[in-house]
Formats: sequence, C-alpha cells, structure tokens
Amino acid sequence: MASVEFEAERGKGKDMKTISENRAYGGVQGVYSHTSEACGCDMTFGLFLPEEAETQPVPVIWYLSGLTCTHENAMVKAGAQKWAAEAGVGIVFPDTSPRGAGVADDPAYDVGQGAGFYVNATEAPWAANFRMWDYVTDELPRILFNAFPVEEARQSIMGHSMGGHGALTIGMSFPGRYRSVSAFAPIAHPTACDWGRKPFAAYLGPDESKWAAYDATLLMRKRGFDGPILIDQGAADPYLDTLMPEKLAEAMMARRQNGAFRMQKGYDHSYFFVSTFIEDHIGFHAAALYD
Amino acid sequence: MASVEFEAERGKGKDMKTISENRAYGGVQGVYSHTSEACGCDMTFGLFLPEEAETQPVPVIWYLSGLTCTHENAMVKAGAQKWAAEAGVGIVFPDTSPRGAGVADDPAYDVGQGAGFYVNATEAPWAANFRMWDYVTDELPRILFNAFPVEEARQSIMGHSMGGHGALTIGMSFPGRYRSVSAFAPIAHPTACDWGRKPFAAYLGPDESKWAAYDATLLMRKRGFDGPILIDQGAADPYLDTLMPEKLAEAMMARRQNGAFRMQKGYDHSYFFVSTFIEDHIGFHAAALYD
Repeated sequence: MASVEFEAERGKGKDMKTISENRAYGGVQGVYSHTSEACGCDMTFGLFLPEEAETQPVPVIWYLSGLTCTHENAMVKAGAQKWAAEAGVGIVFPDTSPRGAGVADDPAYDVGQGAGFYVNATEAPWAANFRMWDYVTDELPRILFNAFPVEEARQSIMGHSMGGHGALTIGMSFPGRYRSVSAFAPIAHPTACDWGRKPFAAYLGPDESKWAAYDATLLMRKRGFDGPILIDQGAADPYLDTLMPEKLAEAMMARRQNGAFRMQKGYDHSYFFVSTFIEDHIGFHAAALYD
Repeated sequence: MASVEFEAERGKGKDMKTISENRAYGGVQGVYSHTSEACGCDMTFGLFLPEEAETQPVPVIWYLSGLTCTHENAMVKAGAQKWAAEAGVGIVFPDTSPRGAGVADDPAYDVGQGAGFYVNATEAPWAANFRMWDYVTDELPRILFNAFPVEEARQSIMGHSMGGHGALTIGMSFPGRYRSVSAFAPIAHPTACDWGRKPFAAYLGPDESKWAAYDATLLMRKRGFDGPILIDQGAADPYLDTLMPEKLAEAMMARRQNGAFRMQKGYDHSYFFVSTFIEDHIGFHAAALYD
C-alpha cells in the first residue's frame, strides 16, 4: 500500500503534514503542507503519484497554476491524473503565492496572495514573503525529492497562464534540470503587458532591467530552452491581447527552438481548455522523461 | 479494377495521356499528361487514388513541390501514399512549372523551369508560359474533377518549400475551397528574402505592390485562412534565414489563426524531413476533409 511507504518516506521531511490522500487512477492524490522558509509561512501543495511509485521512484512534472488559483484548481479540474497514471509519472501542484494573515495582500486579483508570479520580490511589503521563484526552484524540490519517491534526474515543468509564464521562465533558467516545458495560454511577454508590468513594478521595483529575467519572450530571444517546448493557446481566449502569444511564437521560431506553438480554435482561458489538451501535454512530457 | 473505371472517366478530359499507372497500397498511383492552355505546353501530374475511389469519389489533397522538383519527387520520396490510402483520400502532385524546348528558362535553379513559384508571370519572357497560379487553381482542378473520381467539395492543400509558399498563398486566396492547409519548410515571407525577391522581380516586375498577393506572411496579416493550418520546419534546415519561419509564426499567432507551427529539432530541408512527418500532415488533412 502506497501510503505506508509514503508515510515512512515523509519522515525525512520536517514539519510536513498530510492534509489528505485519495486513491486515484491506481495511484494516490495527496495534499501536504509544510513550513516554508522561502515564503515565511505555511505552504500547501498537491502531489499525484502513480501506482509505480509504490515500488520505485518515478519522473515528475511540475504544474504551475495561474492567477487566483491555489494548489487545488488544476488538481481537481485539469484531469491530469489519468494521463499521468498511464505514463507512470508524478505531478506536483504548488500553490501560487504565500498566504495567511501575516502575509501582505492587495485587493486586486493580479497582485498579492494568489498572484505570486513566480518571482523573488525585492520591494516592500512583498519582499518578506513573495519568494515564489526560490520556493518552486529550490525549497519545494528539496522537500519533494527528500520525502517522496520522485526522481530528481527526470523532471519536466508546465503551467497555465501565470503558471505558463513561470514554467517557461524557470525552464529556461535552469539548463539541464527539466527535460521539457509546456504551457497553456502563458503570459508570454509580461514586461510588455498589463499582466506583468503591474505586478513586476510592485514586486521588483521600477528598474525594468530587473524584470527581464522573468520574461519568457526575452529569455527565448536570449537563450532558449535545451529541450522541447509545447505551447497551446486558445483562439477565443479573452486575454489574448495581454498574453501576447505572437511575441513568444516569433521568438521561438527565430531561435529555431525545438517545439510547437498551437493556436486552438474556439477555446478560451478556462480549465475546459486545459483539460481538453492535458492528454497531449502529459504525453509530450512523458516522451521526454522516458527518452 | 480501378484502372478500367479510371479509363472511362478519363474519356471526359481532352488530350489526356496516361504515362503510367501502378498499384500502390491497394489504390493506384498514376501519372498523366495533358495539353495546358494556362502554361502553353504539355504538363504532367501525378495522382494517387486510394482503393475507395473504385466505387465512389474521394476527397483530394493537393501537394505542391519545391524548387527543382517535377511532379515526381514527392510522389516517389515523400511516402504519402500509405497514409492517404489509410485515410481514403487522393493526392495530386502537379509539376512546378511549364517545361519544354519552347518555354523560357534560366540557368539559375531559382528562376525558370522548375521554379514557377505558383504565380502568374506578367513580365517577358515569362508571361507566355509561367501561369502556375492559374494552372494549379483553375485549369488542373477542372481537368481533375472532370476526369477522376475526386470530390471538388472536399479539397485540402499542402506543399514543401516553394510549394509550401504556394499552398499557403493559394489556400488563403480561395476562402471556402480548401478545408485545411499544411506546409513543410515554406518560403514564408518571399517579398523579404532571396527565394522570392529574385523570382518575383523576374516574373512580376519591379512594382512590389504586385508581389504582396503571393506572400504568405503578408496574406496572413491581412486575412488568414478559414480552416486549420499545420506548419513543420526543420531546425537544422540550411535555408532558415531565407525561409523566415518566425515571420509567419508571428503573423499566425497575431491573427489567432487556427493552427500549429512546429520547429523540429535536427531536421533539414530534404525529403527525409518531409517523409518523417508526412503521416501527421495527411492525418491532419484527413481529419479536416472528413469533418
């Protein structure tokens, strides 16, 4: 039984609490919380492990979620587990920001709790907790690889909207770490759009040269990604003008980046879009992880 | 036996000669020649018809070839027939230019015979014969739909390199005629590159405003295509700088064009590239043709 082994493994992590574990597609969908040093608060994440993880470590896909989401949205609405189970890969669903009474917030949906943008904030009042870059690329990986049967040598990363931005920027910033990157409707060029300029100014200050490290289009122009990339964008997405897919598509093809950019007729920005194409994305990552 | 019925059907066409017919994948790969009014010379084309065409008309895919090719190259090297047979669709392979002793030519490979560029030339000495636009969009369709069991209501179009340019520009110029368009390594923005400026100047004269109707990127910016588009480009293609895939990719995504643009790592400009992904392309068209 998987949970017994997991329980023993989790002993290695400090301060980890099991919120829930549910059997799903022959594996286990778990939700765990832990004290985060990076974020200075308790953080919660979801982790799906397929049946294979009972006997051996499995590859893992990072799924970064979008604005207003928690660890839970994709976990319950994307329909990823079926395909992860078929492929024998795990999926981890981090939260999108620090949270809690002691954490700075803003009434707007695009700055503050639920809108971490996967950056390390340097400006008050955000710098104290909003270090989602460090959390997702350093702290949570250490916890994950210490406590669960997942393989550090076989990771891929994906995300939706703000999480697509996160997946692309993180993927390009750690050459050799991730085998593949994919995104649904990523915020593709945040230094040039509303879903970027406002939170970046808040978190990073007015010096735009500090924003460039968090812009997928700029990173693509500068260095690209050392593996395959898959992007899906809905053609009926109401946020297309701020997502700016054309800028990332141009940069990908100008760099001759291994990958595909797909414009899907009639689809919008919702999880109905994500769930329609999640099979393709999990299969894409599985091919890279088992290459 | 298919060829008997084909023979009867061909009676409807004038001046048509059967060069060869070979059984292939349960259907027939034919090569036919006829007197072309558009080109003022004899023209040869290949036509694969699947087994289903023995009893009923089938959908048809136009395959436009690249520089230096005849009707034969894709027919013998692309490996399309297997997938067309599985999908129950025909494929027609037109030649790439007028030919013969009485037809103007140039020692260069990128102007003259084998380099028709799917335009109607207006300049001497080319205007007399180089009317490949009319040939592919008007004369050959009339011959085809008159003489063979293929459905005018279900057509798609694809091509390679110069033929990808042709497929895209023709597809966008006849809304409602083609269900889908695909291209391998298309000359994506010919008014801005060597594989375009030189032949366009020769065929169309110095007024660049007349070139715009034959530029896929400009047409995409202006109107787009009313169906799905699939583009494959090899990342190791030695002609990338003149193919300019990034311009078409940007234009597609800026228009929110239904479709996918794929950059395939390690592949070059040859038929080894085409044959690797031809299954995807035929399947893509078949899905649109049987929608």
